Amino acid sequence: IGTKFPAMGTTIFTVMSALAAETNAVNLGQGFPDFNCDPTLLADVSAAMAAGHNQYPPMPGVLSLRQAMAAKIEALYGRRYDANSEITVTAGATQAIITAVLAIVRPGDEVIVLEPCYDSYVPNIELAGGVVVRVPLTPGTFRPDFAKIGAAITPKTRAIIVNTPHNPSATVWTAAEMRTLEELLAPTDVLVISDEVYEHMVFDGAAHESVARYPGLAARSFIVSSFGKTYHVTGWKVGTVAAPAVLTAEFRKVHQFNVFTVNTPMQHALARYMDDAAPYLELPAFYQRKRDLFAAGLAKTRFKLLPSGGTYFQCVDITAVSELREAEFCQWLTREIGVAAIPLSAFYGSGFDQRVVRFCFAKQDETLNRALERLAKL
Amino acid sequence: IGTKFPAMGTTIFTVMSALAAETNAVNLGQGFPDFNCDPTLLADVSAAMAAGHNQYPPMPGVLSLRQAMAAKIEALYGRRYDANSEITVTAGATQAIITAVLAIVRPGDEVIVLEPCYDSYVPNIELAGGVVVRVPLTPGTFRPDFAKIGAAITPKTRAIIVNTPHNPSATVWTAAEMRTLEELLAPTDVLVISDEVYEHMVFDGAAHESVARYPGLAARSFIVSSFGKTYHVTGWKVGTVAAPAVLTAEFRKVHQFNVFTVNTPMQHALARYMDDAAPYLELPAFYQRKRDLFAAGLAKTRFKLLPSGGTYFQCVDITAVSELREAEFCQWLTREIGVAAIPLSAFYGSGFDQRVVRFCFAKQDETLNRALERLAKL
Ligand SMILES: CSCCC(=O)C(=O)O
Ligand SMILES: CSCCC(=O)C(=O)O
Repeated sequence: IGTKFPAMGTTIFTVMSALAAETNAVNLGQGFPDFNCDPTLLADVSAAMAAGHNQYPPMPGVLSLRQAMAAKIEALYGRRYDANSEITVTAGATQAIITAVLAIVRPGDEVIVLEPCYDSYVPNIELAGGVVVRVPLTPGTFRPDFAKIGAAITPKTRAIIVNTPHNPSATVWTAAEMRTLEELLAPTDVLVISDEVYEHMVFDGAAHESVARYPGLAARSFIVSSFGKTYHVTGWKVGTVAAPAVLTAEFRKVHQFNVFTVNTPMQHALARYMDDAAPYLELPAFYQRKRDLFAAGLAKTRFKLLPSGGTYFQCVDITAVSELREAEFCQWLTREIGVAAIPLSAFYGSGFDQRVVRFCFAKQDETLNRALERLAKL
Repeated sequence: IGTKFPAMGTTIFTVMSALAAETNAVNLGQGFPDFNCDPTLLADVSAAMAAGHNQYPPMPGVLSLRQAMAAKIEALYGRRYDANSEITVTAGATQAIITAVLAIVRPGDEVIVLEPCYDSYVPNIELAGGVVVRVPLTPGTFRPDFAKIGAAITPKTRAIIVNTPHNPSATVWTAAEMRTLEELLAPTDVLVISDEVYEHMVFDGAAHESVARYPGLAARSFIVSSFGKTYHVTGWKVGTVAAPAVLTAEFRKVHQFNVFTVNTPMQHALARYMDDAAPYLELPAFYQRKRDLFAAGLAKTRFKLLPSGGTYFQCVDITAVSELREAEFCQWLTREIGVAAIPLSAFYGSGFDQRVVRFCFAKQDETLNRALERLAKL
């Protein structure tokens, strides 16, 4: 039949979750919690369904949810988005990102990604006919290298995709870095797709630096948020995009012919839940404790821990543990030790091997302890 | 910022639903029921959520739901699809169609659509860089014109999108028409995207002719189904695509980087519900009665009724009622008479005006009666 994508495989998250299930390994690969969300939120879904909220919502999303997001963004990051014309509910962050890419990238346009990066960005750009321009984050520290980013910008650059807190490296951009990006882009027309799905998982007293805080960035940005990550419901597939009205108008042109709309009862439930509670305020402490518990256990192994300043991921250097390449190491670790992890090479187009793998610690303490017991054998 | 889609407006369904809400009109425009689904199905969602099914499902969908769909397709249409490699759960039919298009259409490939057609098809093809080849259905009867379809096929034809029962015209393809399509495509490599979301709404004792029944078609087809239409939950945004393994593999390459996965609790609930019940067997009688109730009322007006053999739509010729163009007529009807409808011109790239508008009768009897009272003024 002729394949359009001869080189494209299955996303690493699916591959490793399937392998973990098959081998009965502790799954610290794909990023999702292994505990349930707040039962109040579930009751809100049941109530929304009983109230008959089971038919198409408005195309841009349920208004009360867009209003709740606008209020939250303003409270946290000080920028006002209009719920009607500047916020769109999406079927999760992945669908938000592809929709933004398809909405703005014309064939031949260049789009900058900072490697390592989430594995959908590059295929998304290619699907739009765009040219992927890969700029490496600084090896070892994973900090943005603005000299390299600046050098990559050309008259054909349409957009840059940024992501803080950063998956997979667990770094968090500083205010100084955000300002540098703002200055770098000031003389250009480059748009920004800002993947902020881990916005509420920032540790050690640091703050999330949303592009919403930086007027020069916000005016050119699509901000991608995830209810799945924030409320422990990754399987609900609900997110939002906040963007200035002109960008939102372009976004919705594609959105309406991609998913059209997003699950109605979940939207009503999330809107109601956000009115009642702000449980994400507790997330930094909640996940920092898990990070520390997991790191304390790993400290007894020969893994070398990289800093985890945000997200719910912990990266480790495997050099002292194994001579395997990181992708093979993850296979081996899953099959032989019974713990699934994700190789960082999966986040590089070149498969670049830094001897680093990523564990997800969004798990019950007992799950983390079971994994640590197994890893102690190394 | 530069728009990629200068000519693209907002989908007619959103425009008319918003106008209906604003003017407090009876909304017979957008195709969705105004009654709630079976409470058992809602209880199944609550149970799935309580059981902790709130995190990412497998990328192709919850296996039990894929198995239930495979069993249903085999029982109804006699073709066996492998649940693992040939069925994928999608975020509704619209997302299924764009994903199939993006998966197979390369820039410059031609894709045939039969006009009038659902308004996402053409933008989907354009987004993939494909060339839209519009073949009109026979004016007046809306039957496929195979001479015209045959003449439109070239060596660059990658696919044809077909849709039976047909939205907006409410025609249902016959077995003879399906065989003719099968023969026409036999000497070609043309793929088929078969939009069958109204498969369970076929009236007057006729049968739905799924491409699954025709081996020569099934081998080259993506079959798009909708739980939203079948179980009265259009807002849940869950559908499926059934396709031979080679086509499914291509489909999933794009699906994983579009929405990645689909709402987990709804998938579990639908799987469980399908195990217990086959309420779609009652849909033909259920909707035929509504069609007849609505048609009997319309017969008292000067609208000329077109045949409604399937879907939940009734088309009428407005010539004897108004001299307005059909798009303006629908605006006027909503604002002045208080009933929203959809102009067929919205389903044509050219805006071709046949003096025909579409009403949706998937409504409570009292809603239909309220609309009929208002329409009686005409
Ligand atoms: C959408 S599946 C992957 C979840 C995730 O964000 C990750 O594991 O990096
Ligand atoms: C996806 S919104 C439109 C619903 C529908 O199928 C129609 O009204 O034609």
